[in-house]
Amino acid sequence: MTDLKFQINKNKFYNALQIASRAVSSNSPVPSLSGIFIEANVSSLTLTGSDASTSIQVYLENEKDEELELRIDQPGKICLDSRYLLDIVRKIDSSIVSVSVIDGTLIQFKGDKADYKINGYLVSNYPTIDFSAPSEPFVLETKVFNDLIAQTSFAVASKDHRPVLTGICMKEDGNQLVATATDSFRLAKKTIDLQTDPFQVVVPVKVLNEAKAIYGEQETLNISLDRKKIQFKNEDILLQSTLLEGAYPDTDRLIPTSFVNTLVINRESFVKCLDRAMFIKTDNMSVIRMFIQDKDHIEITCKNQEIGSFEENLTATSFTGEPLDISFSGGFMVEAARSFEDKEIQISFTGALRPMILTSTSSDQSNLQLVLPIRSFN
Amino acid sequence: MTDLKFQINKNKFYNALQIASRAVSSNSPVPSLSGIFIEANVSSLTLTGSDASTSIQVYLENEKDEELELRIDQPGKICLDSRYLLDIVRKIDSSIVSVSVIDGTLIQFKGDKADYKINGYLVSNYPTIDFSAPSEPFVLETKVFNDLIAQTSFAVASKDHRPVLTGICMKEDGNQLVATATDSFRLAKKTIDLQTDPFQVVVPVKVLNEAKAIYGEQETLNISLDRKKIQFKNEDILLQSTLLEGAYPDTDRLIPTSFVNTLVINRESFVKCLDRAMFIKTDNMSVIRMFIQDKDHIEITCKNQEIGSFEENLTATSFTGEPLDISFSGGFMVEAARSFEDKEIQISFTGALRPMILTSTSSDQSNLQLVLPIRSFN
Repeated sequence: MTDLKFQINKNKFYNALQIASRAVSSNSPVPSLSGIFIEANVSSLTLTGSDASTSIQVYLENEKDEELELRIDQPGKICLDSRYLLDIVRKIDSSIVSVSVIDGTLIQFKGDKADYKINGYLVSNYPTIDFSAPSEPFVLETKVFNDLIAQTSFAVASKDHRPVLTGICMKEDGNQLVATATDSFRLAKKTIDLQTDPFQVVVPVKVLNEAKAIYGEQETLNISLDRKKIQFKNEDILLQSTLLEGAYPDTDRLIPTSFVNTLVINRESFVKCLDRAMFIKTDNMSVIRMFIQDKDHIEITCKNQEIGSFEENLTATSFTGEPLDISFSGGFMVEAARSFEDKEIQISFTGALRPMILTSTSSDQSNLQLVLPIRSFN
Repeated sequence: MTDLKFQINKNKFYNALQIASRAVSSNSPVPSLSGIFIEANVSSLTLTGSDASTSIQVYLENEKDEELELRIDQPGKICLDSRYLLDIVRKIDSSIVSVSVIDGTLIQFKGDKADYKINGYLVSNYPTIDFSAPSEPFVLETKVFNDLIAQTSFAVASKDHRPVLTGICMKEDGNQLVATATDSFRLAKKTIDLQTDPFQVVVPVKVLNEAKAIYGEQETLNISLDRKKIQFKNEDILLQSTLLEGAYPDTDRLIPTSFVNTLVINRESFVKCLDRAMFIKTDNMSVIRMFIQDKDHIEITCKNQEIGSFEENLTATSFTGEPLDISFSGGFMVEAARSFEDKEIQISFTGALRPMILTSTSSDQSNLQLVLPIRSFN
């Protein structure tokens, strides 16, 4: 019988456990999935956390980190509740933690004087997870990836009455990666250059946010995917997840291509004005009415019989077309406007009942935001 | 008809509204108590927030604050929902806010371009609150008051199966103020010098924490009280509250005065050791067993059949008496030990089933902590 035994730098071990635990769900129907699975090989340690659909693996070896102080006396496998593991390692009274199997699933953690004996899970009960790469990876600059997530993730549906809308649709199309998020009332679309084989997948937004949190500081990001899963990987950490199933709506046909009005306006003034108006909510939504007479006369109002009213006049840089009276959700418009970094943004209209399109006033047209108007009698 | 009209520095107004709103409960059965009552006099503004039992009044006048920029064009009274008020004033687009009554309860707030018209409450519906001083005030140093709260408040009962235990009992007795908090499993008692008339009241812990938050930065604190209410006051802010009714238990008879064992131990080592043990919880409590053989052999253990066990050996500075085996709630002991600032604390025992008393090892004996042991079969 091989009884695992190793020791490791406490802080390095804690940081690695924290990352692996990000995929652990504390109330999984499979008890062992509340645990972190630790495999000690001859010269390396692998930590695995998973909630069955999302999984994270962390690799630790001295060659890659000289402060790791990993010494494996006996290879083996253990699985322990992630909360206990984190709590023990965080507070233990020494800079090196010693871990060993005492008997079956009883695991000992020793610090200087502190001595823990914790009941783990049977390692044979931990599900087998396929960590093979689904395809040849493609590479994205992390900054590009982070922007993509920041500019689309807020627009996904938060309720899962249509689960596929809780993810971001990522599609390779003509040497471009198009990311689309919509909750069917507004839509965010980000386009970046990418040369790879064609694909179309819908990735849970939670997984993309995890990838941003885990890999956000490094320069590039390796992504591989097939129809079933997406995998992010560097030499220390692997993150993978199953994809969302179901047909993603054909959103391109929703985006108008010709417009009758165009407004160019200071982004910060516009956002701040809407933010002021938005404490007035009707059925938990702030319906903003925008009446544009000309570029110097833009009236923003928000009303509610019970609460009262807000009114402010804005001026724009330019406005083309006939006067326009249109209403929209203040929250959706603010999120769309905030996704740009430009000083000014352009809002294009095709009438009071057709989608509004927000774009940058710069040559970078990679970010497109659509907000549907609201019929309002205010 | 007198229609209120004034203007005031936005930031100063916002800060004052924030303080008044601390007493406002958003779901009061009396709707107007969700509001802040504003009274503009000839040269000053009074803001009142209240949840019927706790009330706060803030006084604003130019004489006391030259940056206030208060100009009262027309005295009067208004009452407006505190959330709307705070949101409007925080975000308004100018450094001076203009407030005026348009018609009845419709109030206008004007910034630079922003224009709000908000429905307020009928001022006649706002309850009349008696802000008269209940007695001649006595004065405490704020540092002394803050320590008193910090060293007792954690020991009050959190559930109100016995409402009087959710407060801190404050008693004048022989030129001393004695503050006692207990949830009947542990007790904290702080004694400070004070010359005033005798009294005994039970103050809701929430009110004392409010007083600490509001007045914590100034040097002294004026307190006046009678059998019905307690009032804190400086020239800008008044805080008052009704007191808790019901007989406070006679806690003095619970505190042993003679002991058979005395342990002097490093406070930080003791707390850290207990903190390490405390992830093991049974019925949401960490039962710690402490077996003291002599000053060099103190065994701290915590066990749970399902989770596992923790064991650590501590050494103490001194221990007098026969070996002792005692069990207690780790959480209560840690809170009691943390209430001291000393490097070492003294724990006095009268057997495994009698209360433990924690005191300072210095000459300052003003803080006394009592922790009841737990019968344990671990």
